Order: sequence, then C-alpha cells, then structure tokens
Amino acid sequence: MRTDGRGAESLRAIKITRNYLKHAEGAVLVEFGDTKVICTASVEESVPPFLRGKGSGWVTAEYSMLPRATHSRSSREAARGKIGGRTHEIQRLIGRSLRAVMDLTLLGERSVLIDCDVIQADGGTRTASITGAYVALVDALQWLVDRGALASLPIREAVAAVSVGIVDGTALLDLDYREDSSAEVDMNFVMTSSNRFVEVQGTAEAEPFTCEQMDAMRNLAMAGIRQLFVVQQEALRQ
Amino acid sequence: MRTDGRGAESLRAIKITRNYLKHAEGAVLVEFGDTKVICTASVEESVPPFLRGKGSGWVTAEYSMLPRATHSRSSREAARGKIGGRTHEIQRLIGRSLRAVMDLTLLGERSVLIDCDVIQADGGTRTASITGAYVALVDALQWLVDRGALASLPIREAVAAVSVGIVDGTALLDLDYREDSSAEVDMNFVMTSSNRFVEVQGTAEAEPFTCEQMDAMRNLAMAGIRQLFVVQQEALRQ
Amino acid sequence: MRTDGRGAESLRAIKITRNYLKHAEGAVLVEFGDTKVICTASVEESVPPFLRGKGSGWVTAEYSMLPRATHSRSSREAARGKIGGRTHEIQRLIGRSLRAVMDLTLLGERSVLIDCDVIQADGGTRTASITGAYVALVDALQWLVDRGALASLPIREAVAAVSVGIVDGTALLDLDYREDSSAEVDMNFVMTSSNRFVEVQGTAEAEPFTCEQMDAMRNLAMAGIRQLFVVQQEALRQ
Amino acid sequence: MRTDGRGAESLRAIKITRNYLKHAEGAVLVEFGDTKVICTASVEESVPPFLRGKGSGWVTAEYSMLPRATHSRSSREAARGKIGGRTHEIQRLIGRSLRAVMDLTLLGERSVLIDCDVIQADGGTRTASITGAYVALVDALQWLVDRGALASLPIREAVAAVSVGIVDGTALLDLDYREDSSAEVDMNFVMTSSNRFVEVQGTAEAEPFTCEQMDAMRNLAMAGIRQLFVVQQEALRQ
Amino acid sequence: MRTDGRGAESLRAIKITRNYLKHAEGAVLVEFGDTKVICTASVEESVPPFLRGKGSGWVTAEYSMLPRATHSRSSREAARGKIGGRTHEIQRLIGRSLRAVMDLTLLGERSVLIDCDVIQADGGTRTASITGAYVALVDALQWLVDRGALASLPIREAVAAVSVGIVDGTALLDLDYREDSSAEVDMNFVMTSSNRFVEVQGTAEAEPFTCEQMDAMRNLAMAGIRQLFVVQQEALRQ
Amino acid sequence: MRTDGRGAESLRAIKITRNYLKHAEGAVLVEFGDTKVICTASVEESVPPFLRGKGSGWVTAEYSMLPRATHSRSSREAARGKIGGRTHEIQRLIGRSLRAVMDLTLLGERSVLIDCDVIQADGGTRTASITGAYVALVDALQWLVDRGALASLPIREAVAAVSVGIVDGTALLDLDYREDSSAEVDMNFVMTSSNRFVEVQGTAEAEPFTCEQMDAMRNLAMAGIRQLFVVQQEALRQ
Repeated sequence: MRTDGRGAESLRAIKITRNYLKHAEGAVLVEFGDTKVICTASVEESVPPFLRGKGSGWVTAEYSMLPRATHSRSSREAARGKIGGRTHEIQRLIGRSLRAVMDLTLLGERSVLIDCDVIQADGGTRTASITGAYVALVDALQWLVDRGALASLPIREAVAAVSVGIVDGTALLDLDYREDSSAEVDMNFVMTSSNRFVEVQGTAEAEPFTCEQMDAMRNLAMAGIRQLFVVQQEALRQ
Repeated sequence: MRTDGRGAESLRAIKITRNYLKHAEGAVLVEFGDTKVICTASVEESVPPFLRGKGSGWVTAEYSMLPRATHSRSSREAARGKIGGRTHEIQRLIGRSLRAVMDLTLLGERSVLIDCDVIQADGGTRTASITGAYVALVDALQWLVDRGALASLPIREAVAAVSVGIVDGTALLDLDYREDSSAEVDMNFVMTSSNRFVEVQGTAEAEPFTCEQMDAMRNLAMAGIRQLFVVQQEALRQ
Repeated sequence: MRTDGRGAESLRAIKITRNYLKHAEGAVLVEFGDTKVICTASVEESVPPFLRGKGSGWVTAEYSMLPRATHSRSSREAARGKIGGRTHEIQRLIGRSLRAVMDLTLLGERSVLIDCDVIQADGGTRTASITGAYVALVDALQWLVDRGALASLPIREAVAAVSVGIVDGTALLDLDYREDSSAEVDMNFVMTSSNRFVEVQGTAEAEPFTCEQMDAMRNLAMAGIRQLFVVQQEALRQ
Repeated sequence: MRTDGRGAESLRAIKITRNYLKHAEGAVLVEFGDTKVICTASVEESVPPFLRGKGSGWVTAEYSMLPRATHSRSSREAARGKIGGRTHEIQRLIGRSLRAVMDLTLLGERSVLIDCDVIQADGGTRTASITGAYVALVDALQWLVDRGALASLPIREAVAAVSVGIVDGTALLDLDYREDSSAEVDMNFVMTSSNRFVEVQGTAEAEPFTCEQMDAMRNLAMAGIRQLFVVQQEALRQ
Repeated sequence: MRTDGRGAESLRAIKITRNYLKHAEGAVLVEFGDTKVICTASVEESVPPFLRGKGSGWVTAEYSMLPRATHSRSSREAARGKIGGRTHEIQRLIGRSLRAVMDLTLLGERSVLIDCDVIQADGGTRTASITGAYVALVDALQWLVDRGALASLPIREAVAAVSVGIVDGTALLDLDYREDSSAEVDMNFVMTSSNRFVEVQGTAEAEPFTCEQMDAMRNLAMAGIRQLFVVQQEALRQ
Repeated sequence: MRTDGRGAESLRAIKITRNYLKHAEGAVLVEFGDTKVICTASVEESVPPFLRGKGSGWVTAEYSMLPRATHSRSSREAARGKIGGRTHEIQRLIGRSLRAVMDLTLLGERSVLIDCDVIQADGGTRTASITGAYVALVDALQWLVDRGALASLPIREAVAAVSVGIVDGTALLDLDYREDSSAEVDMNFVMTSSNRFVEVQGTAEAEPFTCEQMDAMRNLAMAGIRQLFVVQQEALRQ
C-alpha cells in the first residue's frame, strides 16, 4: 500500500477547473493530488519567423514553477538570468505533445502559446501540465471557432500524460514527490485518445530496467491515461 | 460613480486567504477585486553577504506576473534573460516596506524571502502585494516562534498599502486597471498601523498635480489603509 | 548647523555649465556641491517601436556612475552584464520627469535620449540629474528649432528636483552623502515651474514619518526648487 | 533499401579512435557513418557544491556542435550568450547515461567532465556521443587506476546508444540525417551491456505510434546496441 | 637548440588538409606542429546591417577552442554565457587579416563567415588560424566562381601569419606552448604575399624590448611567412 | 599641413590634470587635443583568485566611453548586457602596458584598478588612456607610500603611448578622429622611459604597409612619446 493509501495502479485525485483566470482565451487549474498547475492558452495572430508565409500555425509552451512551489525555495530563473536545463526539457516536451494532436495547417498563421505555471509541486508536474494544457488549448481554439476565425477545432484527438515508476521493485502509477524521490526508474508517457504514443521518456535513476519492467510500466500508464481522458472530457462538457 | 458602482472613497472587495499553499512557512492569496496575488514567505537560516556576522536578519522580496495575468500576454522575464525596470522598482518597494516594520536584530541572522506572484492583474498589484505579504510574513515569523526559534514576533506594527489616483479631476481610492490607465496622477501609499508613512510614491502620468490634490489623495489613502488593517487583522485572527 | 555650515533650508552651491562636451546637441555639467553629473541630450530621428506611426516623439533617459564616483569603487554594470535595480529606478524617474513637461506630439516622430553620467557622487545624484538634464534637453530642442526642424520649443514648463530628508528629527534640504546616510526619511520631489508636482518619492529609512513631517519636507522642497529654477534660467540665458 | 544501401536493421560504419587528442585523460573520435564527434574525458579533483563532503564523485557532460558541422551554418551558442534547449536536453542525457553505469562512491570526491563536440553531423549525434564518451570515460578512469588513484575501474558495465525511427511506416536502425528528417517517429535507446535500459526517449514527429511499433523499434535498437558493445570492446582492447 | 630540436629560425611541421569536413564551402585542417585548427568558410547571401545596399561584401571570423584543447580543461564560453576578451581579440584579428587581402566590392553583397575551432592547442593558435583560414576562404570563393556567382576570385594576394618571440634573449620563430610560456616578448606578424604587413602585434610579457630586438623578430617572421605561402600554394594546387 | 595646422611630427596639445575627482587614490583628466579621458586608480587590499597566496600584486584596467563621447551616440554596454570586442581589446592593452613597468612583487597582495572613462573622443583614446593612467597609478602608489603601506614606489620606469598612422601616404603622429578615419595604416606604440617597447600594434586599414613605412612610423612614435614623458613628469612634479 502507498503512503496515501492508493493501490499501485491508482491515480491521485484529478481535478480540472476551467476558466480559472479571466484574461486568457483558455485558463485551467489542473490538480493531480497536491500538484497544482495553472495552464493558460493565449492566441496570437502571428507565427515564429521560420513559419511565416507557410500557411501553418504553431503551438508552443513555457513552463515555470513559483519559487516556493517546492518544499524548499528554489531561486527564480528570471533572477538567475537564464532558463535551466530541466525547464527547457519540460517546455519542449509540452509543446511537442500538443502539436502532435493539432492540425497546424487548419489553425492558419496564428500561434497558441501555452503557459504552465506550477503553483504547488508534489511530483508529476510535467504530466499534469500536458493533461491540463490540452483542455486550455481546446478552450482557446473554441474561442477562435466562436468568433468565426476557425470553422472547426483543428484538433485530431485528445492528448494526456502520466508518470509511472518503479519503487522498491514495484511499478507504480502517478508518483507523488516522495515516491518519485525514491524511484529506481521514472517514465513519462504521453498518449492520444486513439491509444497511441506521442512521447515516451524513461530514465533509470538508480538501476537499469528490463524489457519486462518497461512493459509493466507501459501497461499501467495506458490504463491511467484512459482515465485522464474521461476527466478531460467531463471538464470540457461542463 | 465608478464603473463597478463603487464610490470614490471605496476599496474593492478585499480578501486574504491564509495557508493557500502547503510548502511555504507563510502562504497567502490576496485579492483586491480581480487582482489576485500569491504571497509566500520563506524562512532561510542565512543572510546576504553584507550582513554576515552582524547579528541582524533580512527581509527581501521578489515580484513577478504570470505571462497571462494581464489582458494580453507579456513575455516571461526568465525567457528574456533579465528582469525589467518595473519589476525591479516594485520588488525593492515591497522589501523596503516590510523591513520598515520589522525589528531585524530580533530576527537574528536569518532571512525571510517574500515572493509575490501575480496570477491575475487588474490594477494595484504592488499595493495588494504589500498588504498580502505582511500577512504571509507574520505567518512565517509565527512559525519561527512556534518552534522556539524566536521568543516573540519581531514586528513593531502592521503595514499595508493602497493606490490612489486622479481620474477626470477626481481623486479615487484603489484604482482598477481601467481607471489606472486613464488616471492623470497615480500615487501609492504604504503606511503602518500607527498611522505613519513608510513609502509614498506619486507620479503625474498626464498633468502635474497641486498640493491640494496631493492632500486629497493622501486623505483617501489614509482612510483606505485603515480598512486594510482590519482585513489583515481578521485574516490573522482565524 | 550642518557639517558644511549650511542652514536646514539651504541648497548646496548649484552650478550648471552648458556646452560641456562638443558632440552632443545638449551637454551640461551640473554640480550640487560635490555631486557632479554630465547630462547630455542626443537627438535621434526615430522613436521606439511602440510609438512608430503615431505622430508622437519620445524622451528617455539612462543613468550611470563612474566606478570611482563613489567613496569605494563599485563594479561596472557593463562588466556585471546587467543593470541593477537602483539604476533602473533612477533612469525611469528621470525619463518620466522630463516627459511630464514635454509636448511629445509637437516633438514629432523623433527621440531625445538623455544620458546622466555621475562623475563624482556626494548625495542627490538623481535630483541633480533631473535638474541638469532639463537644461541639456532645452539645448537639444533649441538645436532642432535653430535648424528649422521645429517651429518652437515643445516644452510646457521647466522641471527641477531636489532631495529632502529628516536627520535627527529635523527636516533638511538637499542632503549630502553623509547626511543621506544617517537620514531617517529620504524624499525626492520633482516639480514644474508652475509649482506643481510630477514625482514625489518618500522612503522611511529607519522610522515611519507623520503627515506633519511630510508637510515640512514638502515645504522645504518647494522653496528649494524655486531657487533651482532661477539657476536653470540663468544658465539658459547665457 | 536505404539511400546508402543498408538494410533496415543495419548500423552505419562505426569507428572509434582512441587517443585522438593529446591533452585529455580520455580522448576519442567516434564516427557513425558521416557523423563525427570528439569525446574527451577530463578528470578534476573536485565535485560540484551539492556533493562536497559526501564521499561521492560526479560525471557530467557538455555537448556542442561546430557552427558548420551542419548543412547550413548555425550560430555559436557562445555568441548568442546562452545554451539552447536542444543542447541542454542532450547534455543532460549524456551525463545521466554515463552516471548510470558508474559507481560514483568508488570514484571518490572527484569529477569526470565529458565534452562531446560534434565536428560533422549526419544524424544520431547524441547516440554517437554516448557511445564514444563511454570509451573516453574508461580511458580517463584507467588513467586514474594507472597512477594509483583508484584501485579498479569504478564502472559496473558498458553503456551505448542508438537511434531508431519509423520512416514510411518501416522501422529503421541508426538513422542518418536525411532519414531522420523524414521520420514519423524518432526513438533513442541507451542500454547497458547487461541488456537493460538506462534511457528511452521516443517522439512522434508526425504521427503517434502504436505499442507494436514501439516494440519493433525496441527490438532493432537492442540488436544494434549489442553490435556497438563489440566495437567499444575492440577499441578498448587495442 | 630548441626542445624539439628545431633551429631558432625554423617553423614546426606545417600541414594543411583541404576538404576536411563535408558541409562547408571551405573546410581546412591546419596543423602547426601539435596545434590543430579546423577552419571552415561558409558563404551567406547577406551582409551585416551596416553594409546593406552598399554593394560590398563582408568577411568575418569566429574563434573558439574545444574545452580540452588545452593542457587543463577550460570552461566553455557558451556555458559562461559570454565570450572572453582573448577570444574577442583573436577573432577580430583573423577577420581584419582576411579582409585586408579581399576585394570586398567584387565579392558582392554576400558574406563569408570563417570559423576557426582549435581542437588541439600547442602555441600559435591565432597565426595557424589565419594561415589555414586563408585556404578555406579561397576554397569558398572558388565554390562561388565554379557555380557562376563570381567571375573570378575577389582576392588580391595571399595572407599568412606566424608568431615570433624572445626566449632567454634569443629571437625564435613559431613558438610552441612551452616556449611561449617562458617568452619575454611575443610578436605576431600577419603578412601578404607581396611582402607587406597587415597586422603587427608585439607584447613584452616580462621585459620591454628594443628596436634591434623588434627588427630581429621581424626578420625571422618575414622568412617564416614566405615558407607558409609555399605550403598554402601547394595545398591549393592539389 | 594638417587640418589643425600641426606638422606631421607634432603632438596635439597634451594636458594632464591630477586630483580631478575627490574619492579615488589617483584621479587624472588627460587631454590629447579634444580627446578627454578620466583615469582613476583605486587601491584594493585583495588580488584576483589566480594570485592569492603568491605574494604578488595586480594591476588591471577597465575602459568605457560615455554614450555621447562620440559624434553620434553609441549604446551603453551595460544596456546591451555585454562588453564589446573593441572594449575588451583596449582594456587588456591598458592593463598589460601598466603591469609592464610595475614590480608586482613589491606591490604585495593588493590590486590597483584603473578605470579609463572617455568623456569626449577625438581619436587616440587608448593611447591617451595609457598615458594618463600611468600618472593616476603613480598617485595611487604614492598614496600607499604616504601611509606607510609601501616603502617605495614599486615602479621601474614610466610608460606612455601614442598613435601613428599613414594618411595619403604620409606618416603622421597622434591622429585625431578625422585623420584616423581616413588613415591607410594605424599603429599604436607603448614605450617605457628607457626607450623600449611594451606594446606595438599595427593594422593596415586599407593597404598593407612596408618595412620602410613601419620604420617611419616607429621613428615618429619614439619622438612623440619622449615628449609625453616630459608632460607626465611635469604633472607629477606639481
């Protein structure tokens, strides 16, 4: 049994609150247990230089944590004057994951900028960010549809993500911070609602892992992500 | 009458929520109408180099806005690689305001780091930050008292802040964003509960102002801040 | 009596030397006692991006100190790779103060860049900078008038600034460095020749201040600034 | 058949040249076809601050490409003043991969710094880097053994890496740049000589991928990496 | 006799390998004994802003050392976030030296970017860079001629460079690192094939030098550079 | 005849004013015609890390120009966030030139920091800086002698510098900006009072130069620098 009483294959309490802030076209608070991330989606009527005049849109993401989202305070990247390697890695992952389910040509020459700001961290912030950002993205695209800028949502399917890990030899779904800190292996799966993968990232923190362990983690993740799609759909239905 | 029906001398709805996040020693959500700021206070058992070995503590502040706290998205200072002039100005103001009511010698050689992160902006973010940060600071200091690190709160009195402005020739208390944008004069007052000033900053945005106008604004501010002290005290009593 | 024999309500010796350097359209050396600042005004036939095509001009300022302007050497901001908070605060103040007396529409789509470089510091560098920069600005604008680019000076009135403080409970005008270091309160007033305020900034360094003290400081400042206008006018008459 | 005549499950010509440069403790040129990377391993008798006094060593990596390693010139990160997201991602990957096979406690309080500098790029630079860096690391550790600083090599097993992808629906091993550019899916596998995984990273560039496709790619990678271990061993035997 | 048996007036073994890398228009490995530099020349169909519309081309250079090109590892300038003074000095020298023999008007509005990356350093990296970069530049210009973009090579004459120094009172040609470290004077000469100077840089490291010593060093350099022109011509003939 | 009536072998009016600013241990205004540079020398009781514990002192220099020292305004390096290549080159030259005449061991473990700030530029700023900085350095060292920290001045001889150039085929001494802009060759000589060289830097701006031209320039420089030593000595005698 896990510290919070969950079974190995259980998600934490997942909650998605739409319209969390008033200015952004999409603004979601996503909670995976005590992990809380504000995901906003901002529409801009321009694309980065490398796409200008090519008839395609763009979706990109930025990720940050409040200094005291974590147990001890971490210094601000703005104060340090540069973005760290972990942040780069995560924001590139979020951007790629969302673009994977978009039809960027249908979006036209405009961009959606995703901002994922972690206000409280308890493990799994990148997978919570992807899961929440998808809902914010749909809201921003629906806003474009509502005002006639798009004929329909340029989205092919849903995308969600979850972390899995091996702790004391056992594969566990949706690690919290304490579990993550002692995990031997940490894998993040990003999947679409057609049951396919857009990103898989596994890291042996302490001990290399076998094919069988990878398969066990993959099975847990696939079942967990199916539940996340249900939560996303319920949030979007309201 | 103002856009939201308030009188010239009325504050917006003020709300202070303590224990808003779980990791920080003090963690407050402060709301001045639609302006929402997360203020955390983090205790660190060290002081900046210029104070080492001098027997005095330190309180400093950092301030930031989520990119989409505002009507249109502003770029992240971390992405730009430097902190802008406005941010510098505000975080120095918050730090000075809080230090003004502290007895830093009683704090001992430790620091309290204040983080004010605006998640939604609608005018008055710096004054809301000061007002909320004071409560987070008290909570962090009480945490030190509770665990025996301090004999009593090293605070001399309360501090709170409000903005005032002249719009169409009339002095108004606690401007929202729309009022602020069209104000001829913008003043921020930071006061202590003994009815004295720790910071006064007035700027003629469009038209210089007279002694009489300054006095009218000061009167509004003094009355408004008295109400803020009541809200702070109620929050701290719970 | 003050260290240099002045009375509480006396300015230091104020001196404004025009045409101090040969390249700039306006180039002034301003001295407030031992505080010496070179203020240049440079005309550029362009405006910042946010003003392009709007028919308005711009005035902005930069401020710096030579490393050894101060008692002990301070490192160069260029070497550190970033501009500090204090510098940001001061150069924004100078820029706002000068824009407050300009008619930017009459200036047309061009900019005046003010550079205030402190070569020797003895307190009050920001107020000396504003007072000297106004004269450099007038010279640069007159240069535009002289060559037919402007029909008349796009200036509504003069602007000057002075610092005031409370030292040992007494309000003193135009603090030098030693007085400033031991002041309980430090206020800077920026006023126009119509006796109105464009910027007021007061900070309790040690002890909060009362309404009465603020009024005493304001009175000292108003009298002092009237004398600065005389010095400016005399310099411009030559 | 592939552009260079290889079969789907074939590696490019792999070549590892030791002692490629004269100053570094380990210095390897690794070639995966036209991809050429200089990997050096430098021993330093210190550890990063977070490890000081803990009795553990450290291995970290930096990665860079010569500006003209690529088809068109890319600007230098030193000239831009910051390291890009892709570089961050790759150098973190290399560092984690090598640490996974080290016994850092046996290394003692010293560091090995790996530098991977791509002099010619034709796809798979990060996997070539890992494969070559392992050999440079062994050489540097052997240098420590040879001079009596270590009793034996603090390495548990070998590590190597390869990329796999799906191009036109077919899984291909060890993509060159042209294949990589048109791949629907791109996966990198980092494995140890005990046939276990230390890093798995898969990205759907164009189309999400299925469980079956992931398994096909994994099989290709496992076979390819087994061959890389042979090349590494042969190089180390000379 | 010198450590490697050379006479005072002898060059080290000089080797120039063309077509060293496959992507660049010019790509040379130049070796002065154990000093090895990769020099690439990249053609770009644009010029820097200050030359736009002026009908002139541009040649500029960047210089870098691999972290472990040197005896002990030096940190990467990209990681430090800025280019050091020595690098600035050297890359400006290389650019000026090459421009001195070019007819930039004949080049048309395009640029050649030279990259000199030192992979192994043993003294004289800047003079080796200039000598090798000239050959890479010729190859890149010939590439433009071959595809009809230029009627003929826009080069007036060849350029090459060598270092000279005074060690233990004796003038020596082409110092290696050990000699350079103990030299009293270090001079670099950049000359054209018409026996004229484009750059002369002499520095007394320990003891000022006399006119006679300067003349002795100049004579050595002139003789050495004549040999470098032969090596360049032989390389270009192949 | 030259634009200002000088002969080819004449210096401009040279003026050295000591005690120009009140805080620095040495503070000189040096004027070469319209070129005006403030040179300060600051004593610090520490040395850079690479010299700690070695019993040797250090002299280093920083160089900057006020934005409007030049005909058109140049942007501040602090605002750009980095120091340009030309500045790096010049400040390294100044530092090396002064160290060449110092006995750093006699100085003991302390540093003298030279700041050369050009307030008005009209050609030859680097050579004026060296010439003036020497006098500021002597004043700072004398200050150390006067307070008993040093037994005698740790200076072996004087150092001064001048620029020479070839304009329309004629060698000219001490170029002003207009001459410098049209010079075919530009050389800077730094010499000691024993008639020896510490730095020689020659650059062909338009046309390579011959041995004979180099000798002509050297002769002009040697005569000019002898006059600069007289001016330095006169200034130091007062």
